[in-house]
Amino acid sequence: MIHLNGYNNTGLQEILRMAGVPKGSFYFYFKNKEDFGLQLIDYYLGNVLKKWTQFYDQEDVPPIQRLRDFYNWFISVNEKAGFKGGCPIGNLSQELGDVSDVFQVKLNDAFSKLKEMISVYLKEAQERDEISKKMDISETSDLIFSCFQGALIQMKVARNTKSVEIFNRMLFDMILRY
Amino acid sequence: MIHLNGYNNTGLQEILRMAGVPKGSFYFYFKNKEDFGLQLIDYYLGNVLKKWTQFYDQEDVPPIQRLRDFYNWFISVNEKAGFKGGCPIGNLSQELGDVSDVFQVKLNDAFSKLKEMISVYLKEAQERDEISKKMDISETSDLIFSCFQGALIQMKVARNTKSVEIFNRMLFDMILRY
Repeated sequence: MIHLNGYNNTGLQEILRMAGVPKGSFYFYFKNKEDFGLQLIDYYLGNVLKKWTQFYDQEDVPPIQRLRDFYNWFISVNEKAGFKGGCPIGNLSQELGDVSDVFQVKLNDAFSKLKEMISVYLKEAQERDEISKKMDISETSDLIFSCFQGALIQMKVARNTKSVEIFNRMLFDMILRY
Repeated sequence: MIHLNGYNNTGLQEILRMAGVPKGSFYFYFKNKEDFGLQLIDYYLGNVLKKWTQFYDQEDVPPIQRLRDFYNWFISVNEKAGFKGGCPIGNLSQELGDVSDVFQVKLNDAFSKLKEMISVYLKEAQERDEISKKMDISETSDLIFSCFQGALIQMKVARNTKSVEIFNRMLFDMILRY
């Protein structure tokens, strides 16, 4: 519900009703809705990391290709969802990053971890001479991350994967040439 | 208020109170809150276009430099706002692009117009041999647009302009080499 409708636009009552969970049980596990929202970020990050590890472990595939496969997987998930939802962490960042200090700290940390997942592939590609040794890994990861987040917003509005496909094709072509 | 707190999270009552406008006057100009939201998109687009034209008219500056100047202006606006707010059209797209059909159509059209503003510079740069004639203008504009939207989300969460500066430096370096 939060993924699709946003954090502020989803009431705790609705969440409890949908989950069929009494209020008391909720407060046993979460201090309040904010605490729930913060734990949602960890939960989602954990899922992404698990999927990332699956691709990362395919050592016979070149690192840049594994990174592309990882993005292609994410794109296919969004296709199956009818181009709705996008990136839960990106959504919360757009909604709360600037107005909530507590979420800002948590989301900033989540973004760093997601960018680190990109960096690991780029570092390995550099070691294997697949990409230029001159490339600044940290800045390139930051740029790739920006592009994908923006392409996901475009996907929502266009209701197709055109922009994420452009990202996937052009950016990797550029990076490989860079 | 919508720029900062989101569309669904801002009540019409609050807007009227803040603006000091009676309900009757609001309904003279707008059918409802949705109509107001849609007109906000036109209003904001108009402002961006006005600013864009100022940069575009500086014909003695090379087109790619004018595009960078345009982005630098937008970044400085966000800096002055304490890294809060981001792109109003990007925010509404993230929030409503996937869940409201009416906003989807409007926002998709707004995105097309914003990307066209980028395309015009790239076309001119191509005619002046500043960038490769082989470059696909439409796809490159789409990628630049994605990058900037994503960099603005990062700006909100990091509360600094690091990611928009990386965008501004790296992407233009890549494009000029591409």
